[in-house]
Amino acid sequence: MERTKFILDENEMPTSWYNIAADLPEPLPPERHPATKEPTRLPPPLFAEAINDQEFSTQRYIDIPEEVLSVYRLWRPTPLYRAHRLEKALDTPARIFYKYEGTSPAGSHKPNTAVAQAYYNKKEGIKRLSTETGAGQWGSALALGCMLFGLECKVYMVKVSYYQKPYRRIMMETWGAKVVPSPSMDTEVGRRILKENPDSPGSLGIAISEAIEDAAVHDDTHYSIGSVANHVLLHQTVIGLEAKKQMEKAGYYPDIIVGCIGGGSNFAGMFLPFVKDKIEKRKPGLRIICAEPQAAPSLTKGVHAWDYGDEAGLAPILKMYTLGHTFMPPPVHAGGLRYHGMAPIISHLYKLGFVEARAEYQIPVFEAGIKFARTEGIIPAPEPSHAIKVVIDEANACKQAGQSKTILLTLSGHGNFDMGAFDEYLSGKLQDYEYPAEKVKEALSHLPQVPE
Amino acid sequence: MERTKFILDENEMPTSWYNIAADLPEPLPPERHPATKEPTRLPPPLFAEAINDQEFSTQRYIDIPEEVLSVYRLWRPTPLYRAHRLEKALDTPARIFYKYEGTSPAGSHKPNTAVAQAYYNKKEGIKRLSTETGAGQWGSALALGCMLFGLECKVYMVKVSYYQKPYRRIMMETWGAKVVPSPSMDTEVGRRILKENPDSPGSLGIAISEAIEDAAVHDDTHYSIGSVANHVLLHQTVIGLEAKKQMEKAGYYPDIIVGCIGGGSNFAGMFLPFVKDKIEKRKPGLRIICAEPQAAPSLTKGVHAWDYGDEAGLAPILKMYTLGHTFMPPPVHAGGLRYHGMAPIISHLYKLGFVEARAEYQIPVFEAGIKFARTEGIIPAPEPSHAIKVVIDEANACKQAGQSKTILLTLSGHGNFDMGAFDEYLSGKLQDYEYPAEKVKEALSHLPQVPE
Repeated sequence: MERTKFILDENEMPTSWYNIAADLPEPLPPERHPATKEPTRLPPPLFAEAINDQEFSTQRYIDIPEEVLSVYRLWRPTPLYRAHRLEKALDTPARIFYKYEGTSPAGSHKPNTAVAQAYYNKKEGIKRLSTETGAGQWGSALALGCMLFGLECKVYMVKVSYYQKPYRRIMMETWGAKVVPSPSMDTEVGRRILKENPDSPGSLGIAISEAIEDAAVHDDTHYSIGSVANHVLLHQTVIGLEAKKQMEKAGYYPDIIVGCIGGGSNFAGMFLPFVKDKIEKRKPGLRIICAEPQAAPSLTKGVHAWDYGDEAGLAPILKMYTLGHTFMPPPVHAGGLRYHGMAPIISHLYKLGFVEARAEYQIPVFEAGIKFARTEGIIPAPEPSHAIKVVIDEANACKQAGQSKTILLTLSGHGNFDMGAFDEYLSGKLQDYEYPAEKVKEALSHLPQVPE
Repeated sequence: MERTKFILDENEMPTSWYNIAADLPEPLPPERHPATKEPTRLPPPLFAEAINDQEFSTQRYIDIPEEVLSVYRLWRPTPLYRAHRLEKALDTPARIFYKYEGTSPAGSHKPNTAVAQAYYNKKEGIKRLSTETGAGQWGSALALGCMLFGLECKVYMVKVSYYQKPYRRIMMETWGAKVVPSPSMDTEVGRRILKENPDSPGSLGIAISEAIEDAAVHDDTHYSIGSVANHVLLHQTVIGLEAKKQMEKAGYYPDIIVGCIGGGSNFAGMFLPFVKDKIEKRKPGLRIICAEPQAAPSLTKGVHAWDYGDEAGLAPILKMYTLGHTFMPPPVHAGGLRYHGMAPIISHLYKLGFVEARAEYQIPVFEAGIKFARTEGIIPAPEPSHAIKVVIDEANACKQAGQSKTILLTLSGHGNFDMGAFDEYLSGKLQDYEYPAEKVKEALSHLPQVPE
């Protein structure tokens, strides 16, 4: 009997994160201040010093504090699976492996950075963290992290999600967070928007502005971000570092690594320790495929330019693939992938040709997710179902070509909180969207002018 | 650093189930036919022969088929945790361990028997399984099991849950099951009830009757039960067999084992391999505490008598602790514990003094569940939160007495699908119920007369 799972003992868990900045063939373009447009660190009143240092560090390995390791042990190391049943159903000679991050209490990879951020802020005397959340995946991860380190947590949740998807809101409250629908009466920004439009459904851009204002006006409060930033990707590398050890145990090195990208953190967390092998020419044939939604295809249809990280222009200006910071993606179910830009690190590696990208429509993505659920058992979230679609395509290509390639998938979370989306798909009600070309064109006309 | 998790490699997974019937100091009273009231096997057109054999076997260890082990490997062995954070929060000298069954794709221990039942039925040429479900935990487990062995699955879901709790229904459909609200137009029983009362909210009793009728009238269909029966408890012993190995790795033997009981299968699955040590006088001091709801306290307030397993009187008559088969428990959130009787094996061991029982009210149970979520991270389902309440009480008693006892908890599933209940608790709207003494008295006047 071939093995199903490749597990690591908690003693085999990585004790440091991997920092790609040490190995990039060209350095990352520096982040720019949203107002002055000059190179800058992260806005000082918003982030802990340790996090700011990590954002710009070029040290190759950064120790994971024992307090953070101790929390990781609640669900890490996460299992690596061989997808025997999916392979059989596809009748493919490909070997498919998947790393499953849904075993965290919040059900996704997000706590990997949330607990680290909570720890560093606690250590620097901060009492509260503020953040934004859409459907609630990031907010619930930060609620968990704050609870475990004794911090208060304030989450600005996009109003339409707050009322339509109460389960994630309740999860955050169960872990002790305070959650308000955004726009809220708790900030200047929120009050202004509510005065203009009392029925505003909210947006991620508004929620970010509220969370940043909250941190700016409260001395005891910092802001926390769940993707895109270098330090977030750094913390997520625990995924890939574990997966590398597990693939060694399995006896294979991947030919292809696949993951979904919204801001990019789960997949970068997986592939950064592997892309090192490609940069150093030890594994020149390794293919790394980013699966993005056609609703927000920043790599495949965006431009590599300076742009704001948020809609309101309060966050730093980043050099990244972007569809324009004012672009509002169609309301696809994969809420975690609805972002106008892409992590600067991924953008940089894509520009340099180290990673590929593929954009997928919603209906074939759900079809792939269902195929996975009906073979491997686990019901995947809509976000990693994008990656599953690509994996199935690659496995079918292997069948056509008669090649036994090894494919490694990042299964970033389960779909327990996305059952409404599966219902829509199964009942035939799910609609797909055309790629909104005109809206992107419009948004790209509003990029900030930044001197190189 | 003390360890957090005690994991087993999949090669260390038990390869046989433990059958307590081989070691009982007195044999179980035989099951009786619901009509003739004579000792009987399980109704022959409803169950696979292999399952019927297991129900009455006295063989100590029964091999787990390789096909079933192969499915178990999708999530088993499940982790054993040391609850360092809960211990610290309680400031107790007690050592608290918990075995977590929420890692299965369905989120609870239920698939342990569902996949075994699906396998044996498939092997005997059956094409479909029918079953009932309340809130959907058992139905989703059987949907998963059937899918993995290529069987059709028909689930009669209590109508009020079907409409109030759609997420579990969608989960079953995602795995390919056909789910109908019960009473349905698909059976004679359902049509009769709907004719009398088109607005019937349904009940577990009605749903059982529909599922049994479905299996009786379709040659290719068998019925499947998720708790109470001997063969179900047998399949669940994989929990306790793993836990025993894991506690050995942890270096402790439990002084107290705690779990929740509805029909009794998750907790029996844990304690049966341990109660063997108590029966054989190797561990005379071991305490085994069953946590039941005050809403359906069969062990603490019921009688040890012959009674039907179902409300309609179609299921076998069992010697068990019961509140009367016509007793309808109050609508507590722990839907999995709303059963009038108790597994005959647990009833027998309780009668013989090998296990204890304690009944808990709903509000302190949720308080305990929240305490667990806010220390250990995992949000527990309302059912095992009953056991957590008892564990916390025992840990506090250890603190009072200055004793370092070792407590082992069965955490049978997560609460991802119970967020509505947590919301009710957190918002202060949750009500508790008085123990319904009059209703029990009434129901106990309807026990069947059975010659000993």
